[in-house]
Amino acid sequence: MNTPYYAVIFTSLQTPDTAGYSAMAEAMEKLAEKQPGYLGLEHARSELGITISYWENLEAISNWKANLDHLEAQKLGKTKWYQWYKIRICKVEREYEFEKF
Amino acid sequence: MNTPYYAVIFTSLQTPDTAGYSAMAEAMEKLAEKQPGYLGLEHARSELGITISYWENLEAISNWKANLDHLEAQKLGKTKWYQWYKIRICKVEREYEFEKF
Repeated sequence: MNTPYYAVIFTSLQTPDTAGYSAMAEAMEKLAEKQPGYLGLEHARSELGITISYWENLEAISNWKANLDHLEAQKLGKTKWYQWYKIRICKVEREYEFEKF
Repeated sequence: MNTPYYAVIFTSLQTPDTAGYSAMAEAMEKLAEKQPGYLGLEHARSELGITISYWENLEAISNWKANLDHLEAQKLGKTKWYQWYKIRICKVEREYEFEKF
């Protein structure tokens, strides 16, 4: 990816009610991949869940936020799955990578 | 936190050699907390590890990167613990939070 681009950091704590969560998370990842300006996604969960999606620009993020199926998932997230979450919209200014050969 | 501030997204894949890793990760977290301009840290690991540290400005990030004990940890990370990692320096432009009561 060429900087600058954008990252949405989604940090969350789940409720005990995880029914339907994995299927929805998978569906949303597939849907995000189809959005214009989508660059990639990284996810990990320990106690805290962190999902970072990467986008070409802020318009791509706005469009994704307003996607109807995604809006439905957001609503379920608030009522069922998440005790707490925080979303940060970030401009990725620099990056570097290490790989062991 | 008041935007704008900065995030360092550290995404990694570990090698099978995890000896000493947890102790070092804990020591580095404690050391980071003492640095000027440190705002917080979030971590999760599944297959992928994601650690995000938050900082007041780019100078605070440069100072942390150049900290001598941290340089030693970075060296060990490259030789022992990490198969791959990627570091992204990001400006956090907006944030919002949800909490269920």
